[in-house]
Parts: sequence; structure tokens; C-alpha cells
Amino acid sequence: MTQYISFRRPDGTPSFGRLDGETVHDLGAPGAPAWLRDALGGDLAALAATGSFAMAEVRLLPLVPNPDKILCVGLNYAAHVAETGREQKEHPAIFTRWADTLVAAGEPIVRPKETTRFDYEGELAVVIGKGGRRIRKEDAMSHIAGFSVFNDASARDWQRHNIQFTPGKNFPATGAFGPALVTPEAVGGLADLRVQTRLNGELVQDQPVSDMIWDIATVIEYCSAFTELAPGDVIATGTPGGVGDKRNPPLYMKAGDTVEVSVGVVGTLTNRIIDEI
Amino acid sequence: MTQYISFRRPDGTPSFGRLDGETVHDLGAPGAPAWLRDALGGDLAALAATGSFAMAEVRLLPLVPNPDKILCVGLNYAAHVAETGREQKEHPAIFTRWADTLVAAGEPIVRPKETTRFDYEGELAVVIGKGGRRIRKEDAMSHIAGFSVFNDASARDWQRHNIQFTPGKNFPATGAFGPALVTPEAVGGLADLRVQTRLNGELVQDQPVSDMIWDIATVIEYCSAFTELAPGDVIATGTPGGVGDKRNPPLYMKAGDTVEVSVGVVGTLTNRIIDEI
Repeated sequence: MTQYISFRRPDGTPSFGRLDGETVHDLGAPGAPAWLRDALGGDLAALAATGSFAMAEVRLLPLVPNPDKILCVGLNYAAHVAETGREQKEHPAIFTRWADTLVAAGEPIVRPKETTRFDYEGELAVVIGKGGRRIRKEDAMSHIAGFSVFNDASARDWQRHNIQFTPGKNFPATGAFGPALVTPEAVGGLADLRVQTRLNGELVQDQPVSDMIWDIATVIEYCSAFTELAPGDVIATGTPGGVGDKRNPPLYMKAGDTVEVSVGVVGTLTNRIIDEI
Repeated sequence: MTQYISFRRPDGTPSFGRLDGETVHDLGAPGAPAWLRDALGGDLAALAATGSFAMAEVRLLPLVPNPDKILCVGLNYAAHVAETGREQKEHPAIFTRWADTLVAAGEPIVRPKETTRFDYEGELAVVIGKGGRRIRKEDAMSHIAGFSVFNDASARDWQRHNIQFTPGKNFPATGAFGPALVTPEAVGGLADLRVQTRLNGELVQDQPVSDMIWDIATVIEYCSAFTELAPGDVIATGTPGGVGDKRNPPLYMKAGDTVEVSVGVVGTLTNRIIDEI
């Protein structure tokens, strides 16, 4: 199964590469910063390695550290719509994150001191390979470079300050993204994959991708109707039921917790929670 | 009164400069692309001209063509909150635009073929000069490079597809921004300035900045609590009452219309509406 990651080389420069067990084959020009985003428009599989590192020597970066656009689908699983008490609409809810909210797999998610209601949201992430505007549903899957895992950690109090989610979704280092890009061929059928979130080992979210109200092709068609998608853009496809804020009693993330999001063969994204220092 | 603009030189490269009547003094390094954003962290007034052009020779760009972040305040005038039938909350509603939605003063605003409810929103725009996180209200005004004018043109049907505004606010070429940056010293007191929108000459919005529910310093404090602001970031501070969608009968923008937003000494932003071709 072919997987790609973004990482910092031992000299600190960013690059991206192909995973091979405990080795990463560097696909960037040696010595210079290189970004997965800039390669996603082409054929990743055709890129030759310019060097190799042991995984222990490098530091993972968010899968795409610098996407132009991060689109997040809200309310895309009926169980989550129901637990929020909202009505289901005809079109998806789309909100945005900025790239400076991203953190890599294995890096800490930072609970901002402004929130007392810091919650997980495990999600399947789509990474755009071929950009476009007004992509038709039947063509949408061919615009996908691959899949990964997202934890759309949310300051629920700030998300609900008013009717737009932006503040609760854009604190720095709250959007965990990775570890790797898994190509569509390697994933095979998406429908049976389960989005599972574990907080300190306890399974708190667990639904199949097939429970999505708007499937991935529909989301790509919808989003590309109003905005041009580019290689490296990210779509976080929404979270299943089971968020901590809607539990009784509520279950929030606190410093020292470990949160794990798995989406079957797409991978497992693990992060610790730390308080801001 | 000192004003700055972004423009394309006759050779097509982008730059920025200081307005002097019908002349613009280029402040970018000659021959190379230069961006206002990159100069806003420093002292604009200290920059020496590298050349000059007649305004007739250049093409205006959106005031900041490539901001990292565009934050838009929703529901910041009581008259607009009332006409939307929403309740007033304790904190502002913040949504986002991407930079590829921006158009310059004098360039056409493009009505997307996907909407039948294309509406104006005249606004005062704030451009950040000094970045920061957790900026205190009492320091906020010192982070402002200057003011300009924004028309947050909105596809109301897409804005209301679901509970997040993103789709209705991010069609390409719908966010008019300019013409110029007017420095705080040149503006003087903000409170008495009126945000006035005219559609084909008819006055359709007209309220003083002092009617804002959350004043500019409060908005900067609030936004910088959850995200780091950088030089060139833009805050569109919200629209007064009088939007076309809430009139009876509704008043939408169509091809051939001229829409003008004035904010007193800050300037007048004029755009024609065209249909997408």
C-alpha cells in the first residue's frame, strides 16, 4: 500500500516522501524546502527518491502543511445532526479552517486557555489532486489524490458564541491531520470503512463512512460549484455521532488525554492533548 | 490625505504605491512583483518611490490582493440583525472569505449563474498593519494599518443552504475591496462616518459606523483571541440594515447594475455587476 507523508528532514527543511516501512524516501529536491501540495497536481508515483531517512530521524508535518483551502463539512452524519438537535437540510454545511490550525500526527493538540469545552471530532479527510471548478459528481472521485484522517478539535463554547462556527474551529494547533496520504487504489471501497474515535482508549465515535448524508462525490460537486479547488486542498468530511459535548455528562478533552482517530486502512491519527503554556 | 493602492503596472506585474492625485508613486522594487501585504508590517510612509505612473496607465487590484485571512463580521448592526429576524448574541458572528473572491474597485463583480438572489453588503474594511494574537482592546487600534471599503456581495440562496455562510460568501469575484487604504490619521474619528450603499444611484444602506454592535477594537480583540492576525489581514466589519434580500419586494443585483459603497473620507467603491460568461 503506497503512502505519502510530509515531514521535516533532520536539517529542519520541510519535504514530502513515500513511506516504506520505517523508511521515508524523500521526493523533494535535496536541501530545498519541498511541499506535497506542489506535487499533488502531478503523478506522485512517478517521482524518484532523492534520498532516504529513517522515520526516527524525521518529524512528521501535517499531511498538507499549507493547503490553500480547508473545507469542513458540518452535520454530515444523521446521528450527529440528531445529537445537535438541528434539522437536516438539503445541502451540506460548509465551514473553513486556516492552515495555521493544523498539527501533525503525533504532535500535541493544544487546548486553548479560552475554552472549557474542548471536544474531538474524528473525520475522514479528502485531499484534492486535480483542481477544478464545477466538478461534476460523476467526475469527482478522479479529482482525489488520496485520503487521510482528521481530528477537527473544537472549542464548543466559541463555536456557539454566535451562528458561525469559525471561532470555535480556528484556534491554533487544533486541527490534527495525518499521518499519511493513502491513494484511492490502496483504499478500495470507502463505504465499509468506519470512522472511530477513541479518547484514552475508550471508543467514543464509531460509524461507517456509508452513513454520510452527502457522500464524497456530492461534497466535491457542491464545494466546487462555489469555489475553485486546487491540488492540496483538504475536505474534512464531517464527524459521526458521539461528540463529547452532547454526552450526558459531557466529555471534554483535557491535558494528558490521548485521542485517536482511525479510518480503517486510511490509518490512525494519534495526538496527545496539552494545555497552552 | 495619504492613500495607498495595489495595482498592476503597465507591464502586468503587481505592485503597490502611494496615490498623489492622478499619479501613483510605485513603492515596490522595480520590475519585480511587490505586494502591499509584505510592506504593511513596516512603515509605509518611510518607503521611497521607485517610479511613478499615471493612474490611467495602471489597473487597480483589490486593495490587498493576497491576504492570509479575511474575517467577516456578520450581524454587526442592530438594524441588520432585526431585518434577518435573528437574535442578538453576546459575541460577533465571524465567517471567512478566501482571497480568490476579491475584486478591485472598478472591476466587475461577477454574479454566479448558480444564484438567483445576489445581494450587496456595504461595509467598512479594516486592514491589519501589526499582527498579533490576543490583542487587547485598548491596544487594538494601534494594530490597524488603515481603512478601506468592502462590498461583501452574497448569494443569499447559497448562504442559507445550511447554517454556515461559507458557500454564499465565496463565489469568485464577489468580494469588492478598495479602492485605497486610508491611514487612521487621515480618517480621524470613525464614529461619524456613514456606510452608504447605492444601487443604480438609489441609496439602499445608510448607517453610521457608530451603530456597530461590536466596535472595531472589540472585534480585533475577539478575533485575535482565536487566531493570529498578520499584516495585510482584512476584517470586513459588517453591513448595516437595508440589504436587498430583506426588502419587500426583494431587490437583487443583476447584470448591468452599478453598486457603490461609500464610507465618508475612507472612499467610494464602485463596481458594475456582470453575469458570468
